[in-house]
Amino acid sequence: MKKLGVLLAFASLCSYLSQAQTDDGIIRLDEFRYQKKREIITIPNVNGLQVLKCDFHMHTVFTDGHVWPNVRVQEAWKEGLDVISFTEHVEYTPHQADVTPGNLRSYELAKNLADESNIILIKGTEITRNTPPGHFNALFIDNDKNFLTDRANALDEQAIQSVIDQDAFVFWNHPGWKATQIEGSYEWIPFVEKMYQEKKLHGIEVVNGFGFHKKALDWALDRDLTIIGNTDIHNLIAHDYDIERKGVHRTMTLVMAEGRSATAIREALERGRTIAWSSNYLFGKEEHIKDLFHACVSLGSAYHSKKNAQGVVTNYYELSNHSDLYFELHLKSGKGTKKVTLFPSSSQIITAQEGESELTYEVVSTYIRSDKHLEVKLSL
Amino acid sequence: MKKLGVLLAFASLCSYLSQAQTDDGIIRLDEFRYQKKREIITIPNVNGLQVLKCDFHMHTVFTDGHVWPNVRVQEAWKEGLDVISFTEHVEYTPHQADVTPGNLRSYELAKNLADESNIILIKGTEITRNTPPGHFNALFIDNDKNFLTDRANALDEQAIQSVIDQDAFVFWNHPGWKATQIEGSYEWIPFVEKMYQEKKLHGIEVVNGFGFHKKALDWALDRDLTIIGNTDIHNLIAHDYDIERKGVHRTMTLVMAEGRSATAIREALERGRTIAWSSNYLFGKEEHIKDLFHACVSLGSAYHSKKNAQGVVTNYYELSNHSDLYFELHLKSGKGTKKVTLFPSSSQIITAQEGESELTYEVVSTYIRSDKHLEVKLSL
Amino acid sequence: MKKLGVLLAFASLCSYLSQAQTDDGIIRLDEFRYQKKREIITIPNVNGLQVLKCDFHMHTVFTDGHVWPNVRVQEAWKEGLDVISFTEHVEYTPHQADVTPGNLRSYELAKNLADESNIILIKGTEITRNTPPGHFNALFIDNDKNFLTDRANALDEQAIQSVIDQDAFVFWNHPGWKATQIEGSYEWIPFVEKMYQEKKLHGIEVVNGFGFHKKALDWALDRDLTIIGNTDIHNLIAHDYDIERKGVHRTMTLVMAEGRSATAIREALERGRTIAWSSNYLFGKEEHIKDLFHACVSLGSAYHSKKNAQGVVTNYYELSNHSDLYFELHLKSGKGTKKVTLFPSSSQIITAQEGESELTYEVVSTYIRSDKHLEVKLSL
Amino acid sequence: MKKLGVLLAFASLCSYLSQAQTDDGIIRLDEFRYQKKREIITIPNVNGLQVLKCDFHMHTVFTDGHVWPNVRVQEAWKEGLDVISFTEHVEYTPHQADVTPGNLRSYELAKNLADESNIILIKGTEITRNTPPGHFNALFIDNDKNFLTDRANALDEQAIQSVIDQDAFVFWNHPGWKATQIEGSYEWIPFVEKMYQEKKLHGIEVVNGFGFHKKALDWALDRDLTIIGNTDIHNLIAHDYDIERKGVHRTMTLVMAEGRSATAIREALERGRTIAWSSNYLFGKEEHIKDLFHACVSLGSAYHSKKNAQGVVTNYYELSNHSDLYFELHLKSGKGTKKVTLFPSSSQIITAQEGESELTYEVVSTYIRSDKHLEVKLSL
Repeated sequence: MKKLGVLLAFASLCSYLSQAQTDDGIIRLDEFRYQKKREIITIPNVNGLQVLKCDFHMHTVFTDGHVWPNVRVQEAWKEGLDVISFTEHVEYTPHQADVTPGNLRSYELAKNLADESNIILIKGTEITRNTPPGHFNALFIDNDKNFLTDRANALDEQAIQSVIDQDAFVFWNHPGWKATQIEGSYEWIPFVEKMYQEKKLHGIEVVNGFGFHKKALDWALDRDLTIIGNTDIHNLIAHDYDIERKGVHRTMTLVMAEGRSATAIREALERGRTIAWSSNYLFGKEEHIKDLFHACVSLGSAYHSKKNAQGVVTNYYELSNHSDLYFELHLKSGKGTKKVTLFPSSSQIITAQEGESELTYEVVSTYIRSDKHLEVKLSL
Repeated sequence: MKKLGVLLAFASLCSYLSQAQTDDGIIRLDEFRYQKKREIITIPNVNGLQVLKCDFHMHTVFTDGHVWPNVRVQEAWKEGLDVISFTEHVEYTPHQADVTPGNLRSYELAKNLADESNIILIKGTEITRNTPPGHFNALFIDNDKNFLTDRANALDEQAIQSVIDQDAFVFWNHPGWKATQIEGSYEWIPFVEKMYQEKKLHGIEVVNGFGFHKKALDWALDRDLTIIGNTDIHNLIAHDYDIERKGVHRTMTLVMAEGRSATAIREALERGRTIAWSSNYLFGKEEHIKDLFHACVSLGSAYHSKKNAQGVVTNYYELSNHSDLYFELHLKSGKGTKKVTLFPSSSQIITAQEGESELTYEVVSTYIRSDKHLEVKLSL
Repeated sequence: MKKLGVLLAFASLCSYLSQAQTDDGIIRLDEFRYQKKREIITIPNVNGLQVLKCDFHMHTVFTDGHVWPNVRVQEAWKEGLDVISFTEHVEYTPHQADVTPGNLRSYELAKNLADESNIILIKGTEITRNTPPGHFNALFIDNDKNFLTDRANALDEQAIQSVIDQDAFVFWNHPGWKATQIEGSYEWIPFVEKMYQEKKLHGIEVVNGFGFHKKALDWALDRDLTIIGNTDIHNLIAHDYDIERKGVHRTMTLVMAEGRSATAIREALERGRTIAWSSNYLFGKEEHIKDLFHACVSLGSAYHSKKNAQGVVTNYYELSNHSDLYFELHLKSGKGTKKVTLFPSSSQIITAQEGESELTYEVVSTYIRSDKHLEVKLSL
Repeated sequence: MKKLGVLLAFASLCSYLSQAQTDDGIIRLDEFRYQKKREIITIPNVNGLQVLKCDFHMHTVFTDGHVWPNVRVQEAWKEGLDVISFTEHVEYTPHQADVTPGNLRSYELAKNLADESNIILIKGTEITRNTPPGHFNALFIDNDKNFLTDRANALDEQAIQSVIDQDAFVFWNHPGWKATQIEGSYEWIPFVEKMYQEKKLHGIEVVNGFGFHKKALDWALDRDLTIIGNTDIHNLIAHDYDIERKGVHRTMTLVMAEGRSATAIREALERGRTIAWSSNYLFGKEEHIKDLFHACVSLGSAYHSKKNAQGVVTNYYELSNHSDLYFELHLKSGKGTKKVTLFPSSSQIITAQEGESELTYEVVSTYIRSDKHLEVKLSL
């Protein structure tokens, strides 16, 4: 029996002032304080494997990044990442007038905070050769003792060898970067082919920050190299990514691992069980993206049907996305809803004409080749 | 090898203009369009039961609400509710100069949209007696044929009987509302006792909108009446609740049901398997809230330990909240983290001194009596 | 001297629980309550004229809208509008089985709340003829006594005359709506030409909701008809517009008026001093949009200069947007920053080569014809 | 003539996918990119003086901060600050194993970016003595040549003298910090009195981060020392402040200056024309806060009146806040609205009984002493 038009009622009932009186003569004004918490990026297990969120490419003040190493751990923790790796440049230390170089020094300084924060920290480095061939990341290195700082192309192979000697997992970074300025386009060059043939190249960074390197995806797929996506962050994550907006995440690699450990990550990387995730897109092998899709998205049974004047019966279904991923579906075949946008942790109603046994959708927010999206069948 | 201080780089690379040219001479400017989707309120099953989100108290223009019935379905759908009930006043129809009264008319008008939207619509009504005893809601009614519009207190019992005759599930609404103005306080009055003894009262609305009626919780617990929380919404949900802010939800009843059906809901209501959820608080029987807590919150195993100068070893754990609920924990016993705030879908680090086998926390965001919070033990 | 890595410190210092104990046995849980306030849409005066925010096209339950009239006032108030008009259909009352028709009934029911809320309410109606010619809105009507409900095209002229007889301000609604389905395209038809010649047509709704009717803009400009933008809202504003997202507003008409009164609005409408504002776009006469741009945006003097290795000096300026409008600028001539995005109430740094006296930008977020953006010169 | 219940219509019309194809084989996925812009913190001029937003206390990796100096400029720029000062510790350089100490090195490294970004950078330092007396900031220093790193209390005076010799503006930092642990409370100690008498102390940091030091406000007021509020930021601003939430800002000093220059700031600091702004609170001299209030808040004339059944007439007014500040008002005298919450850039309706000539409000979101709020009179 509340009255209508009660626009004004309680207009100012609530105070936005918040303070805690303390006994030390200092009042805490905590209303604007950032509330520390680790976001859970919800992605269900895929075929019994955990989907770990990893960023294998980042910098700190020890080379050309803008932050002390601990900040990278804080960022990763609050964003819900599982794994990070500092990959300081071997050959490039622009802060050396102020900061003593030390390729693994960021690892050492951040290790304790990472341990306390349940972040897996992997020893890594960036082999920063001139373009071409450009840059390579090496993960799971042991030490930074025998690295080459001479960038002469003649020494490129030796530079890679220095991390191979440490049994590193090596991937080619952002293959298109600068290459187009230098050569008009980027190509699968003989040096890289040689590394690949000698099993000294294990993956390719298909997405670097906001750039999806189209050819790189096909190269990885054709040669069974591991698909990687990273931030290559130098600045604050929040100064590159609109991270506080709902649904926004950094570019990362989703690793389908048998456990949450460095060992399990290495095993998954070697087996190529990865998907790059950037913006609203997923990039990877068809089987991986298909399995991931079906782990995240479920179609309920028909809950309603309606017959129109022509006697055609339409059935109603709920298509639910139980993950923090985003899927956009365009109908390929079958008489059903033409376009479906599945936002994180939400569902949409879709309809299908009675008699249809399945609908085929192209998931246009995925890439299983540079020119191909995943197709999924929804059984009705 | 990006340069520092690249504040200006790409400052205006991205356009915020979005338009779709069409072939009918009309350009669609869809950038500000609300994207329709049904949010999933993530709450895991509890003991194998689904946790349905229900609002059993709402009004439309057919009595004193501000919206056409379809709006209530739209609101419920986008917020992720499973079940709603229109509970128009029997005795109060202030819009009758313009709108033809019809107690179940809102149900009829919204039924088709509810069916299409996978919202379970339960026939209900509000028996709007003078205070005391005030208002009662009747769910699962069959029709609105024999309702009493005369509000004389002498007819209160007959009014209740009219819905009991339809085998309704009846609960007492907002027991404290107006009662304090009239009588100084609100009490378990003889009329209500009589209804209760005659098994004509099955539940109590412990939370109505933003008001938690403290005595009502204890009455419900002491008499094994079903605990209910509702909006009693008249205006738009968004004009009462800051619904677009992350984490904000309307007041509702969480019903632990064996399935997603009207029948299962009725069964659960009769068994009292409910929890009222309002703001960041949960209200209910100890066993229900405890089970819900443990379904949502999990403690990982120790992932790190640290010895201080005195030789005391501190172990680190991750406490994860896999739900959209909020839990705030204060330590009661054990040497561990004093205070933990578990935001929806996030985790916190907690520590405990080695040797402790468990920590006991008071979950101050829950009420298992008007003066008592749930206590939980976390086994280390 | 704070320590690094203090990720955990104060992790749970702040509580997100908020409650007010009251003496009536009811605890208020106000944390999620929507805080009522009227947003100020900041737009500076233009040539000494106030820029009023107006929506001249909306519906309620009295015809085919979904809300009681008071909701439209609440929505307008919180969004910061100055002026609204209910424009119920004369010829279309799909709710009449439940709601007694009354073309100005929504006005009557909302008038008191509008008065209390400082919202100017203008009596209006929608003349809902078949397409073509389609629909027309009449503002500043006096009563609803002699309206025609017969939709026969033969009576179209009489229908318009019925509001002209009341000295109404008449505009053609969404000229492209349905027209393309019927005739393949929408045209300046003879009926409309006749109304225009007889001075019975005074404006055109160039933007309706999310649709910009391109031809309509040119028609208005060529004939000096008043340019209008409206929501034509039927549902909740928040169910069509993503209104809670920062910077999002409904489609509206900006009226440059000599005061904040119905009289001043009518005068401004008759003189054509309007701009339609939808999404991030502005639509209007060149002079109006140019004046508005310069009222909102200011260029500071050069605050820094830098000489490069070639001896070229670059000067730095701050371009500030003191309004809640959005402007996107593309450089047309002059050596300066190529692209500038001016978000509401913010500034950007732009640079220009020394020696330049001005930069010319195309403001691509404006339309001064269907195929032309405003050009502005920034004097350095 | 849209139909009701069109919940599903256009459900997936809009894509959330955004990508720009480029001709270099790299697709830009810019949807999640942070859009660089400088927010304007809207605060009107006060008595013809500009209100500059200043943070005079911050750290970088050169002492115990977590970021490279350029990040501080970026943060300040995007948040809309005018003035910042790096105040590295003289006596405390915990990163010295990795970073070569240099008290003004952060200034040097950030100067160019600050110049390009129109941020005024003031040379400063922190004199980090043991507690008591604790820490002092010195602004407008010239060089870091003769600073004392020996923290022996016997040398405290000499430490202060070293910056006085450079004609610095000196203020006492967070007087209550640690003092309570050491001495049970914090007091106006003889050392500080001596500095004050010798005119070597010019201001007091009344708010440091989230802590309001109550006694410090009264000391400043009683001795006409300049009132300062700062972040003392070590970590990212965004890891301390919930900066992306609407309305949230860092703790800062509002300086009422005759121009936007280092000279004007110094003049204003010396004259004490400052207000500390932290959370939703303002701290300062009564005259300053009163003038600021009236510059921001305006009361419109009565736009409506209503007579009740007893013949009492109530007048309606709009109280508008044209700033990004927050004001909360509690009625002290006069018959009017009891409580008014003025959010940034918004208005509220207030009412007053006819016959009242003014209403007196306590602005509880301001402190003009540790135990006193500003009182304002609103003339009706």
